[in-house]
Amino acid sequence: MAAQTPPHTPPGRQLWFGGDHNPEQWPEETLAEDVDLMRRAGVTLATVGVFAWSRLEPREGEYDFAWLDRVLDRLHGAGVQVALATPTASPPPWFSLAHPDALPVNADGVRLTHGSRDTYDVCSPDYRRASVRIVRALAERYAHHPALALWHVHNEYGTWTYSEHGARAFRDWLRRRHDTLDALNRAWTTEFWGQRYGAWDEVLPPRATQYLANPAHVLDFRRFLSDEMLDHFLDQRDVLRTASPDVPVTTNLAFGDWVPVDPWRWAEHVDLVSVDDYPDRSGAGGDEQTAFAGDLARSWADRVPGGGRPWLLMEQAAGVVHEKGVVRPKAPGEIARHSLSHVARGSRGAMFFQWRASRGGAEQWYSGMVPHAGPDSRIFREVCELGDVLGRIAETAGADVVADAAVTWDPESWWAMNATRLPSDRVDYLEAVRQVHRVLWRSGRTVDFVRPDREPPRVPLLVVPSLYLLSERDAERLARYTERGGTLVVTYLSGVADPTGTVRTGGYPGMLRDLLGVRVEEFHPMAEGEKAGMDVGMVREEVTLWSERVHLEGAETVAPYAGGELDGLPAVTRRRYGAGEAWYVSAHLNDRGLGRVFTEAIGQGPFPEEGLDVVRRVGPEGAWVFLTNHGHRALRIDPARLGLGAGAVDLVSKTSAEGLMLPGGGVAVLRGHPVDN
Amino acid sequence: MAAQTPPHTPPGRQLWFGGDHNPEQWPEETLAEDVDLMRRAGVTLATVGVFAWSRLEPREGEYDFAWLDRVLDRLHGAGVQVALATPTASPPPWFSLAHPDALPVNADGVRLTHGSRDTYDVCSPDYRRASVRIVRALAERYAHHPALALWHVHNEYGTWTYSEHGARAFRDWLRRRHDTLDALNRAWTTEFWGQRYGAWDEVLPPRATQYLANPAHVLDFRRFLSDEMLDHFLDQRDVLRTASPDVPVTTNLAFGDWVPVDPWRWAEHVDLVSVDDYPDRSGAGGDEQTAFAGDLARSWADRVPGGGRPWLLMEQAAGVVHEKGVVRPKAPGEIARHSLSHVARGSRGAMFFQWRASRGGAEQWYSGMVPHAGPDSRIFREVCELGDVLGRIAETAGADVVADAAVTWDPESWWAMNATRLPSDRVDYLEAVRQVHRVLWRSGRTVDFVRPDREPPRVPLLVVPSLYLLSERDAERLARYTERGGTLVVTYLSGVADPTGTVRTGGYPGMLRDLLGVRVEEFHPMAEGEKAGMDVGMVREEVTLWSERVHLEGAETVAPYAGGELDGLPAVTRRRYGAGEAWYVSAHLNDRGLGRVFTEAIGQGPFPEEGLDVVRRVGPEGAWVFLTNHGHRALRIDPARLGLGAGAVDLVSKTSAEGLMLPGGGVAVLRGHPVDN
Amino acid sequence: MAAQTPPHTPPGRQLWFGGDHNPEQWPEETLAEDVDLMRRAGVTLATVGVFAWSRLEPREGEYDFAWLDRVLDRLHGAGVQVALATPTASPPPWFSLAHPDALPVNADGVRLTHGSRDTYDVCSPDYRRASVRIVRALAERYAHHPALALWHVHNEYGTWTYSEHGARAFRDWLRRRHDTLDALNRAWTTEFWGQRYGAWDEVLPPRATQYLANPAHVLDFRRFLSDEMLDHFLDQRDVLRTASPDVPVTTNLAFGDWVPVDPWRWAEHVDLVSVDDYPDRSGAGGDEQTAFAGDLARSWADRVPGGGRPWLLMEQAAGVVHEKGVVRPKAPGEIARHSLSHVARGSRGAMFFQWRASRGGAEQWYSGMVPHAGPDSRIFREVCELGDVLGRIAETAGADVVADAAVTWDPESWWAMNATRLPSDRVDYLEAVRQVHRVLWRSGRTVDFVRPDREPPRVPLLVVPSLYLLSERDAERLARYTERGGTLVVTYLSGVADPTGTVRTGGYPGMLRDLLGVRVEEFHPMAEGEKAGMDVGMVREEVTLWSERVHLEGAETVAPYAGGELDGLPAVTRRRYGAGEAWYVSAHLNDRGLGRVFTEAIGQGPFPEEGLDVVRRVGPEGAWVFLTNHGHRALRIDPARLGLGAGAVDLVSKTSAEGLMLPGGGVAVLRGHPVDN
Repeated sequence: MAAQTPPHTPPGRQLWFGGDHNPEQWPEETLAEDVDLMRRAGVTLATVGVFAWSRLEPREGEYDFAWLDRVLDRLHGAGVQVALATPTASPPPWFSLAHPDALPVNADGVRLTHGSRDTYDVCSPDYRRASVRIVRALAERYAHHPALALWHVHNEYGTWTYSEHGARAFRDWLRRRHDTLDALNRAWTTEFWGQRYGAWDEVLPPRATQYLANPAHVLDFRRFLSDEMLDHFLDQRDVLRTASPDVPVTTNLAFGDWVPVDPWRWAEHVDLVSVDDYPDRSGAGGDEQTAFAGDLARSWADRVPGGGRPWLLMEQAAGVVHEKGVVRPKAPGEIARHSLSHVARGSRGAMFFQWRASRGGAEQWYSGMVPHAGPDSRIFREVCELGDVLGRIAETAGADVVADAAVTWDPESWWAMNATRLPSDRVDYLEAVRQVHRVLWRSGRTVDFVRPDREPPRVPLLVVPSLYLLSERDAERLARYTERGGTLVVTYLSGVADPTGTVRTGGYPGMLRDLLGVRVEEFHPMAEGEKAGMDVGMVREEVTLWSERVHLEGAETVAPYAGGELDGLPAVTRRRYGAGEAWYVSAHLNDRGLGRVFTEAIGQGPFPEEGLDVVRRVGPEGAWVFLTNHGHRALRIDPARLGLGAGAVDLVSKTSAEGLMLPGGGVAVLRGHPVDN
Repeated sequence: MAAQTPPHTPPGRQLWFGGDHNPEQWPEETLAEDVDLMRRAGVTLATVGVFAWSRLEPREGEYDFAWLDRVLDRLHGAGVQVALATPTASPPPWFSLAHPDALPVNADGVRLTHGSRDTYDVCSPDYRRASVRIVRALAERYAHHPALALWHVHNEYGTWTYSEHGARAFRDWLRRRHDTLDALNRAWTTEFWGQRYGAWDEVLPPRATQYLANPAHVLDFRRFLSDEMLDHFLDQRDVLRTASPDVPVTTNLAFGDWVPVDPWRWAEHVDLVSVDDYPDRSGAGGDEQTAFAGDLARSWADRVPGGGRPWLLMEQAAGVVHEKGVVRPKAPGEIARHSLSHVARGSRGAMFFQWRASRGGAEQWYSGMVPHAGPDSRIFREVCELGDVLGRIAETAGADVVADAAVTWDPESWWAMNATRLPSDRVDYLEAVRQVHRVLWRSGRTVDFVRPDREPPRVPLLVVPSLYLLSERDAERLARYTERGGTLVVTYLSGVADPTGTVRTGGYPGMLRDLLGVRVEEFHPMAEGEKAGMDVGMVREEVTLWSERVHLEGAETVAPYAGGELDGLPAVTRRRYGAGEAWYVSAHLNDRGLGRVFTEAIGQGPFPEEGLDVVRRVGPEGAWVFLTNHGHRALRIDPARLGLGAGAVDLVSKTSAEGLMLPGGGVAVLRGHPVDN
Repeated sequence: MAAQTPPHTPPGRQLWFGGDHNPEQWPEETLAEDVDLMRRAGVTLATVGVFAWSRLEPREGEYDFAWLDRVLDRLHGAGVQVALATPTASPPPWFSLAHPDALPVNADGVRLTHGSRDTYDVCSPDYRRASVRIVRALAERYAHHPALALWHVHNEYGTWTYSEHGARAFRDWLRRRHDTLDALNRAWTTEFWGQRYGAWDEVLPPRATQYLANPAHVLDFRRFLSDEMLDHFLDQRDVLRTASPDVPVTTNLAFGDWVPVDPWRWAEHVDLVSVDDYPDRSGAGGDEQTAFAGDLARSWADRVPGGGRPWLLMEQAAGVVHEKGVVRPKAPGEIARHSLSHVARGSRGAMFFQWRASRGGAEQWYSGMVPHAGPDSRIFREVCELGDVLGRIAETAGADVVADAAVTWDPESWWAMNATRLPSDRVDYLEAVRQVHRVLWRSGRTVDFVRPDREPPRVPLLVVPSLYLLSERDAERLARYTERGGTLVVTYLSGVADPTGTVRTGGYPGMLRDLLGVRVEEFHPMAEGEKAGMDVGMVREEVTLWSERVHLEGAETVAPYAGGELDGLPAVTRRRYGAGEAWYVSAHLNDRGLGRVFTEAIGQGPFPEEGLDVVRRVGPEGAWVFLTNHGHRALRIDPARLGLGAGAVDLVSKTSAEGLMLPGGGVAVLRGHPVDN
């Protein structure tokens, strides 16, 4: 499974636009209307066949490709390219009936049944074989179809299983990871509660047990699932590569704490990183989530050792936001704004789930580019406008994003912090990272995410929020970054454990004590509603959720706690380290407070205008600035301040960028020549 | 299973009074006291043997009827009639031990065990056979017992099962419903997520699966359970009819969203519709629920094609209301008031669970007509008073209820709206119907509920709240009602899907677009705490929970949205249609707002006095008006305004009705001659 | 299983100090540091080997004692005694793999797996045999080790199982308890819902069933589990006693509503009662819980028929409180204060979980006497101070506690009140008992808990809070106590059922009606947020949660209800009975209101200073008063008022007790001679 430089990238100066297209759910005549409407909307790519296994192979070994031939031919005829999916995320009912042991088993030992999607046990040999078989059949038939632009493997990998197949595969994986049982016993601290294993066969998935599970056991199981699914992906990728060496292969990554997939590692094995993004809040919360997802996806794609990958927003909701049980329509302009936010961050286009809202099935109330109301609708009109805009800005495809700051993002720390019985069950890794991103983004900075096991980029600021797991080597990497002149800001709960999840004793934050010049003696997590203060200069900021008893061992206090048991003790500290500075934030602050810390550390952000999202791009042929006004007020744009010389134009409005007024909710893409500012 | 005209009705001018009687739980000598107390209370009917299987058949094939003989003889001797129950709702422990596969299985595949009641798998052939056997034995012994007045089959049908027996029966039912697998695949939109079935054997109950279930699958399973249970009932009914053709057969229907029973269909197969009513709120909330349950039960009984059935309140709590985990005593007078509310609405009496509060068992803290404290108690004194009142108003039995308005009630829409992932998980079908009933009831109107697949009654107002499922034929029925001069008021989420649950595209509310003259483009469900407004004339009413983007296509705006994204767009619309009017209410309003809409549509209700419940009855021999004062203030009653001529009398107080002051909490039943008002 | 006088007690004038010591989790060299630090801290006892089975017997029949030899020798060399644990609370992975049927099964039938602790089925014959085997091996090797001071059997007994093994054992137990099936049917009221058993084989554990379980069934199952676990304990105790007749045997009892252990009965079979105490609130709430736990543990130990036992606080958290998902550090001084609170109440020392905070495993974020930060920490410094104080007050060990009041505590009533469908699901037995304790404790009284089936001590006040289950004999015992001059205060829901859980009819509180002179006709439980009043003299106290309709039948009203439906009716009553008084409190009051009732009944408590905890001790050689100031203000101490004559000294500060100022959070132990006050 060694990473390879991808042989294929999507065609250069093009932005894909389209969505999941499922004509098999509709009467034959709908396809003709679909193609007409796609033309009207400027659709360039349709994702076809995502769950179509039971249609493609209605009985074992009997294939029906005729309908799919018609779909591909028709789309091709209309100039629409196809991302052809392998349908392995939904094995057919006949398969589950014939192979009940290929169904997933939950932690209680309940074998799930057919009746939804994702009813597969990724560790089942029968399922693995059947997956390769249907992929081979697809590859044989369509590898050279002129519509084919992309292979889309599976869908949103993420189904857990605790089956016997899973147990066997888990043991094999553990042997590879730990080599000896003694090493596993050490890594998992199995002496605690007498869990010491004497033979490999004794090791099980973390199934239902009497009381608390061993967190190291759970963490390794999650890592195992990621690798096992990756293995399933690679089987398919290899078949597809062999059949069509020039067609890139991707799989759409989902994002959520239930997804046992490590995108850093997966990115190494796809030709194109594609992601699904479903913000769960509307309004400002959704804007932030969108920018976060775009920066994350770009970073996954960029930071592949040996060479970055292109990336693509493969799914987003066409017309709605699913917000806590309420499906809210997107506000006028939001479809374009969210799409452009991704394209600004490097997405090779804007794809949707789905082309046409379904009439039936579990997601019959999810949205479509063509909604239930049909093309005579606000949604479809906005879709057409977006298609138009994407055409106008296609030249930006492939240009590099210019980042101002870096933030570590580590799925393994996230998983580890999902364990029960941490010092506080109110600490949320994802929210900690999101908050850092949000605060930087609101000050006009563009953030690169970095994996802790690789060299960070050469940006002036590197923030390390709550990086629970940290290896010695990665800690050294942070020291080197600082030594060379970077400003490092580490927040609470970082570095407390090694990669097995074993706590580093002697004082927190473990490996980082020396670099930061502090020793944390005790945690003081705070209950809901509890508050303390912290003084930054003359201003008191609010502390909630988390605080710590910090001893200075080389650092100086930037901001002390104010009030409460820790009154006067260090809350935020700073230490000169080589040419740089290492900051430690021991408390959980609100957005304003954290923003103050960043300002103290590296000064104000470049574009603190409320709601203005600025992303700068550079390529061999020029420079672009994507501007998205998430606010309600119109903003006057000054190209010079954005680093563009005279003569810049806005590709969206096709007017000069000088004196441009960007209305609330509006988007602009300025093209110009970079000047030194 | 064709509906038949029932051969039997309960004896005409009589109101049954009594409750579940379980002398088997008590020492032998208690029976003598029971009979004495029943005489004191005026009890006329005792329900006997509801769960007595393990007592009647202590070992397979060995019967012990001696104790039951004594009970029936004793009751008969005291002039108390008997509703003799079949005990099939609780199979004996020996049966479950011998037939473990006759125990229900939950969606996770867990086979439940003996240890409560309802531990049967209604699809198990062994259970079906054993049910018929014990019923036959009972019928043979008691068919001609002089105490026998009613057969009471089973108890509160409603136990789900996902067993293999269930899977087989479900497939048989699906074949009958859909005929071909292609039709099923279409009805369920199985192309979505690749759920297409290739053979009947692949179809399973909607057991635990990996992700969202298919809502059409779940809906059909619920319909199947209703039919399967009905089948179990019919087996018993046929045995009982054969043995005693003159004794009516009933089963007590429960009410709750866990109950997979369609009362419209069941009513066609019983001789008497009987219901259990347990309001879950005390005070005003309980009064509303009681009136709602009574109107619903009467409607189930009345609307049987080919001829209405009598109905009976078979169970209510004797002395308490179970309100969110707190068992509250009924307020003084509430026992009579709730009972009379049902009798006013046509119930052939007032029955209770139970005669004597149990000392042990799962419901040992439930109430009885004879409470734990014994007969020297407020409860028992109120029970005796009620017995007295019922005797005085027996002449009303069988007289028709005069309704002022009709409201659709559709269990299948209810079930469909219990699906996950609707546009809002805050929409509650039952509450929508209850609200319409409540608002009409508070304005003094008596409501008939109607099933959407039958002709509505000739009343001036027909309200259709959130009727999610709607067939083309039923939509035409609503159009005809309007065309002929009716006022139709349809509320949001109506008509959006066909009976399979498939969304009708082109704009909501689907089949009703033309009739209502509107097209809804998008839903705007609202989160908890979110509010908008709607202007009716000069008054602003509050909108919460739900709103819609409505386009006028023939209708005119009665009330526009005020504030929010929909400001100025139509919220309530009206269209002339033939001799009538079709109104559409696209927003969720509070009670006052909805009342305003009804007033705009058809004028004020006849008796808007706070807390006064008025039900008019007419029969060949006269007219009656039931008055229940749920409020605290005394009200002066004017018989003329109630449509009665001079000389009316109050049967309860045995005084003239002229100038009658009805105290807070009081009841009156006026008899007089109807005049034209 | 007859109770025996324990042959052994811990050595007299000594207070144990130490904690769970798990050197097997650490590198070999850590043990040397441990022993050094133990010496510094004054540790006298280490609990060793609690879960070490998989280390001691790495493969079936293969033992590895070498490491444990080293640990014991080393500790002995340092003068630290050992509580040597039997490791049966965590069977090794190899055992579970070989004996899957020895794993516990939950109510749904899910067989749990290895992966935590407590993964045993206490009813499994294989597990029982293996337990005895490993215990025998330990006993053979270590019975005469000079470090051995105490056998610590198992850990926190409490694992439920619904397995087939459990079903068989349950039936055997039921036969012994009920003798005949008829008796069982009567006791459980199986006629309700047709649950009548015809053969023993039909009886199952209360596994998942369709609807409500039978509460008598559930209650007996819980009693059975207690006895079955006790049996497992006795097997081990007998082996250990035989091997080392002079070494006392204990097991650490846990406390929680999930624990099916009846401490009254267990105390009869141990040589030393030991308990684990984990308050779940910090601050004042934790202080109360600590005093409650200490009084409870002492009472369990004291009230053994035929002779009291010593007791020991075996586990407490070293540095933190786990409070609703947040692990809070103990406040400065709290470690000592909580420890002294237990020692004041008779604990033979203060032990902790655990010596050294673990780096890995499920409790890696739990605290240690040596925290993650190491010995250079506030925690370890406070631990050392505590060791010092304990040395200075060792002379108090074994002296009797002087109690002022008694309160019934009945685990069976607690269990019974955990049933579903009580008149209110808001009533909480444990909280009711805690409230009575708290109110008495705050007024300076020391409380003895009493078991209802034994003679209460001769104290002036006996409070009986919500004693749901009551036998005739126990009711007579309460009458005798009162007759002889005691003041008895009974609160609501007492005496309503017999020991099978069967309600006593005729009016509540059943057997106590005559003694109290009241008859309760109806319960009026109150919903959340609902309030009423009660007038005590001129002051109105608040009533929430519970009220009752009380009839006087011999008693007089002390306080009537004020407002609400019960306005003017008796809320608190009093009846002269022989030389004493029997009070009834029918309402739930807040702390102040309940305090008022106690004051009315027996006058003010002796030390109502806020936050001052006073425990008096007497022994043959003197008298001591433990003072713990849980408040923030310093208090002046007057030895005379505490019953000490001139010349008293404070052992903690080693100064004269005259004019002693006890600072907020401070502790003092005064020694002096008792005077008559």
